[in-house]
Amino acid sequence: MQTKGHSRNFIYTDWILIETQFDPDQLHSKETVFTIGNGYLGTKGSFEEGYPHALPATFIHGVYDDVPVVYTELANCPDWLPLVVIVNGDRFRLDQGEILRYDRQLDLRYGLLSRYLRWRSPSGNTIDIHFERFASFADQHVLAQRCHLTPVDFDGLIEVQGGINGYPENQGFNHWEGLDQGKTDQGIWLQRRTRHSRIEIGMGATMKILGTEASLQVSTAPGYPTLTTTYLAKSKQTVTVEKIVTLFTSRDTETPVSAATEKLAHLPDYATLLKANEQAWDEAWQQSDILIEGDSTAAFAVRYNLFQLLIAGSRHDDKVSIPAKTLSGFGYRGHIFWDTEIFMLPFFLFTQPAIARNLLSYRWHTLPGARRKAAHYGYKGAMFAWESADTGDEVTPRWGLNSDFYGEDVRIWCRDREIHINADIPYAAWNYWQTTGDDEWMQQCGAEIILDAAIFWGSRVEFNSERQQYEIRGVIGVDEYHEFVHNNAFTNRMAQWHLQRAIAVYDWLAHKFPERATELEQKLKLTPQERSHWQDIIAKILFLHDPLTEQIEQFEGFFQLEDINLADYQGRDHSMQAILSIEKTNKCQVIKQPDILMLLYLMRESADFPYNQKALQANWDYYAPRTDITYGSSLGPAVHAILASDLGKSAEAYEVFMQALMVDLEDNRGNTSDGIHGATAGGVWQAVIFGFGGIQLTENGPVANFHLPDGWTRLKFKLHWRGKWHDFDLRKGQVTSLRSEFKIQNSKFKINDPYK
Amino acid sequence: MQTKGHSRNFIYTDWILIETQFDPDQLHSKETVFTIGNGYLGTKGSFEEGYPHALPATFIHGVYDDVPVVYTELANCPDWLPLVVIVNGDRFRLDQGEILRYDRQLDLRYGLLSRYLRWRSPSGNTIDIHFERFASFADQHVLAQRCHLTPVDFDGLIEVQGGINGYPENQGFNHWEGLDQGKTDQGIWLQRRTRHSRIEIGMGATMKILGTEASLQVSTAPGYPTLTTTYLAKSKQTVTVEKIVTLFTSRDTETPVSAATEKLAHLPDYATLLKANEQAWDEAWQQSDILIEGDSTAAFAVRYNLFQLLIAGSRHDDKVSIPAKTLSGFGYRGHIFWDTEIFMLPFFLFTQPAIARNLLSYRWHTLPGARRKAAHYGYKGAMFAWESADTGDEVTPRWGLNSDFYGEDVRIWCRDREIHINADIPYAAWNYWQTTGDDEWMQQCGAEIILDAAIFWGSRVEFNSERQQYEIRGVIGVDEYHEFVHNNAFTNRMAQWHLQRAIAVYDWLAHKFPERATELEQKLKLTPQERSHWQDIIAKILFLHDPLTEQIEQFEGFFQLEDINLADYQGRDHSMQAILSIEKTNKCQVIKQPDILMLLYLMRESADFPYNQKALQANWDYYAPRTDITYGSSLGPAVHAILASDLGKSAEAYEVFMQALMVDLEDNRGNTSDGIHGATAGGVWQAVIFGFGGIQLTENGPVANFHLPDGWTRLKFKLHWRGKWHDFDLRKGQVTSLRSEFKIQNSKFKINDPYK
Repeated sequence: MQTKGHSRNFIYTDWILIETQFDPDQLHSKETVFTIGNGYLGTKGSFEEGYPHALPATFIHGVYDDVPVVYTELANCPDWLPLVVIVNGDRFRLDQGEILRYDRQLDLRYGLLSRYLRWRSPSGNTIDIHFERFASFADQHVLAQRCHLTPVDFDGLIEVQGGINGYPENQGFNHWEGLDQGKTDQGIWLQRRTRHSRIEIGMGATMKILGTEASLQVSTAPGYPTLTTTYLAKSKQTVTVEKIVTLFTSRDTETPVSAATEKLAHLPDYATLLKANEQAWDEAWQQSDILIEGDSTAAFAVRYNLFQLLIAGSRHDDKVSIPAKTLSGFGYRGHIFWDTEIFMLPFFLFTQPAIARNLLSYRWHTLPGARRKAAHYGYKGAMFAWESADTGDEVTPRWGLNSDFYGEDVRIWCRDREIHINADIPYAAWNYWQTTGDDEWMQQCGAEIILDAAIFWGSRVEFNSERQQYEIRGVIGVDEYHEFVHNNAFTNRMAQWHLQRAIAVYDWLAHKFPERATELEQKLKLTPQERSHWQDIIAKILFLHDPLTEQIEQFEGFFQLEDINLADYQGRDHSMQAILSIEKTNKCQVIKQPDILMLLYLMRESADFPYNQKALQANWDYYAPRTDITYGSSLGPAVHAILASDLGKSAEAYEVFMQALMVDLEDNRGNTSDGIHGATAGGVWQAVIFGFGGIQLTENGPVANFHLPDGWTRLKFKLHWRGKWHDFDLRKGQVTSLRSEFKIQNSKFKINDPYK
Repeated sequence: MQTKGHSRNFIYTDWILIETQFDPDQLHSKETVFTIGNGYLGTKGSFEEGYPHALPATFIHGVYDDVPVVYTELANCPDWLPLVVIVNGDRFRLDQGEILRYDRQLDLRYGLLSRYLRWRSPSGNTIDIHFERFASFADQHVLAQRCHLTPVDFDGLIEVQGGINGYPENQGFNHWEGLDQGKTDQGIWLQRRTRHSRIEIGMGATMKILGTEASLQVSTAPGYPTLTTTYLAKSKQTVTVEKIVTLFTSRDTETPVSAATEKLAHLPDYATLLKANEQAWDEAWQQSDILIEGDSTAAFAVRYNLFQLLIAGSRHDDKVSIPAKTLSGFGYRGHIFWDTEIFMLPFFLFTQPAIARNLLSYRWHTLPGARRKAAHYGYKGAMFAWESADTGDEVTPRWGLNSDFYGEDVRIWCRDREIHINADIPYAAWNYWQTTGDDEWMQQCGAEIILDAAIFWGSRVEFNSERQQYEIRGVIGVDEYHEFVHNNAFTNRMAQWHLQRAIAVYDWLAHKFPERATELEQKLKLTPQERSHWQDIIAKILFLHDPLTEQIEQFEGFFQLEDINLADYQGRDHSMQAILSIEKTNKCQVIKQPDILMLLYLMRESADFPYNQKALQANWDYYAPRTDITYGSSLGPAVHAILASDLGKSAEAYEVFMQALMVDLEDNRGNTSDGIHGATAGGVWQAVIFGFGGIQLTENGPVANFHLPDGWTRLKFKLHWRGKWHDFDLRKGQVTSLRSEFKIQNSKFKINDPYK
């Protein structure tokens, strides 16, 4: 294997991330970085043999359970990884003995994680151990591990214990209560259930020993069934242990245990499973890969980010969506934010549209929760949760609790005030429809989302009779450094844009699917009065925009706040909020993440008001220097990269793009241990495609007005648009036209000009 | 064994609690009821083989760890109980197969818990199983289990797994991280550490098989070391399994694991351990037993309550105290309240004075936390925590969090306002001194508690220049239904009483221990001005008392609140606060627990102001009918029993006494699953001794003006007072004089008239 290069923190080939030294200080961030998954579950890169303070975790989409303060969280599932090797009485563990070789590799091409180790035990026996694992991309209920054991300098007894640990932890909390466990002809099984949400899990495991004679023993410590084998190892002779695990939950089937044990009984061997996994990955990459030439670091790191999205997007379940930290960490407790629709969705929309559809359908399934939230706050329609989980109810914690006995608790206001999400989701639903032409989904799901969320705005706006304008008061905009503002430009304009689309969708529905229109009118109490109220709001909503300079004020009074020169804080390694305090940032012109610039970005694709080149320049010049791009929000850098690229600031675009690209590979915000930055990964794709690739969507499909960064000689990718694939192979100094390559297989999508 | 009788929910002999049927609905309350312990740890009565939703728990004094919202809690320790029996492949468990006999017994005399079972396995094999366990009262680091197995109708394979479960849970949370585990010649060991407080635990276990040939296997699932034996069982032949566990923490020794394994290596057999345990219990009961004749239910139940106190009081550690729910439940998270000093302490003070001394020394050791609390709230001196744990810092939760997505959180104000505890602890310290004459402790610990807590009052009172009186505003009194009141009579009078004692203690110290007096003057900044400030407060503190009628107003404006007729709510099974809402009870003359009556009770012993017979009658008549005695606070009934007895209301006294007596045995408040009501157990002792026994403390020692309830023919107990034991053997219709019986062994206490 030939490495292509190395960055500050890692080595890579075209497809493989390599770590050649184990650093205990990076234990938790590397557990995140080496996550594997298959769109059904994600498993962190923790060691098979354990390590002090390790935080092994497997998260399954939709498997939430109650927890105080944050209401609900993805339950860490029983751990399928334990594979303990005991060499002549010494348990293999990296904190004891001597590590003579260490090489951990994540193969993005096939989702395969492996470790090559040479270890000298405390008693002086040297052994080569090669671990390998994958979560099958071909069958999402199958997990596989393999371990090659080769004594280097001894003959002796080797014991291998392969188990399922039914005591997984969410920061110490075990969501699972034991139901049962047992043995089968094939091995062991475990049945557990979440304490409150009562989701049952059934897991089965077998273990096979190749290359020696050895029998298996089953030990059944309650909650920790284990298969054990002991054999007489010979120097230089390799013995292989294969452990296969199957897993179902009651979200999949009524009888998870028998589903798991039955599947286990009929599985082929490890090599065959691995081959099927590789074929499935081939298909995924054929659609989603981006090839970059001339910048091997970026080429690898872009693939790394796309890999994170591919293992997180649900392929067979439309009642789940992707949490902010994907399925790779405890951060934000598996809650789902606008991150999914605005940052991650475009990647799926243009390369895996079936997954995009699943992600948006989740919002349709959770409309009842959004309606409960609206009713609780005294509004109408659907008010989407700022943080959403299984039901769509609001699960943003109310409090940041102080662990100090006498410290004050901090009230978190996002659940009450960060309402722009109610336009963001309709924005994504509209774009899905525009891009795929999926009328079937639009009439069944999308229209209801867009219309019921519009009804919310109708009840949320206030008419200011003095101004003769509609206002939206008391919100948090995209920028979360200002926690109680009036007429945030992003929120007001997005609400207006949303209401415009709601009217278009209603008209289209009434024209094309009159029965569904009538059904929704009744269900949502959607009257002609309501729609003319929308028209009135569209016409009269306040938007703080100077038509002369094109400058937009982020919210009322922003320009009057104290100005802060961010350059004075160069070299800091904390957010401006941490440095200045919450109270102070509320009073200053310093922003956490692009807000006006985010609005311009979202309006850019369709060149909608207030987007134009002059507006972009004027507002970039004002807001970019006031944005805490390094330590504010990780949502910022990719958006800045695209806009800087638009403005011809190539060097700046690339610099800030690299910040986004490396956020987890280099842990440059120090919180990769909490999980992968999913929105950043999605932003990376958008920066490459829309920024450097310069993709614009025309009546005839996507067109590339590309401007590649210095050094990039080639940028090759595919986009799916209205039922057809469009191939792009962009080379420096060469204009490449698009061509339609192949139709998506079994496509349900038709080209369709939405009714206007 | 001859049973003496049975109550609604249980059967008993003189000393043994018997349960003859297993009711899964009472799983958790019975786990509490069958708790065993030895003053070092408590272990709930969960089954050796487990049960769905069982909550096995072992709590060790002082082993706290961090937890959100409630700051810290007693960490449930690794479970030493697992003893799994597999009969021809069927795991013995009460939720499968058939229970042909069930008999659980708690022998209070020796702290021995046993279960006799006849069980038919799903495959039809019938077996007699007899479990037994105790936590040695002779050596607090030793825990022992025994199991007799006798096949009734089959020969076959029996497997027994004895383990230590390193995954214990506090409501799902596991406070322990794994450090290491392993095998010894004797068996297995486990080393774990609390996550935040970093308290290490070391446990060892051995297992012995008697009556058959069988070898032991060690299996080492990570965190769950297990000893397994399999043997060929013969019909009607008994095989005995003995499992001995040793346990140390880093609070006891620097090397808990080696302490545990070394102790294990040198232990005698189960029978010898059991004998030593019995001897230790003999000694304890010799001092603390109460014999009642003529009312076998009360006789047994009183012993049951005393047992709960005996297993909870720390005999060898003066840095811990007894939590509100003793060491028997998760309720109140192992936090320590005034319950200990005011309700539980008298039992120890008069029957186990060395334990009383430990309990009060805990408050001395935690003075630094009380000082931090005072400083945080802007006061001087020591402000004791309403809820206290390892450091003495305030650990009352700020919030009762609503698990509903949209429900409001409830602010809990006790940490800020329920300050009467700052006089309650000095009250107990003074009484300890008066009762024991322990000058050594008083000069070293007690004086500092009393003086520094008095300094707090000096800074807390406010002088009302209009009234020319001192006030204490904005408090919660004993009655917690009123959350923001001014000049609560209990608080004001107790503060005054405390300041009076503080002056006496200072004068005594200056006279008898002038060096210590100087030391404390400097350390506490205790000036002559401060002491004359105390005199001024004593003279001028507001106390809402009508000298004519002797009626006392609970706080300013109480008599103006809306009156509620509690009789109208007869038959309810919720507290009045739950029925009326927090807001409403705040505005009504309905109280959670005796407040004025509690004050009268505390002043009764020394017949201090405002206690006299007329005051008692007047205030009883007013307040008793307005007190939510059934579902308000469990602190109420015992106090009402004593005062009713004083007032000659014998029937009423007995009725309310029985409420207290049966609170856990009959689970009559429905929350025994949270743990034993420790304060009620202490109140039971006080009701028997001070109420029915009519004990009054005179210059010459305790005197009994007893008035036994109907049916009681004899009441016999001992009291330790000023270095001597006083025996009481009270018989109906017969005046029994006291006599001094024997001196406490190795007594450090001298008779001492404190300086006045």
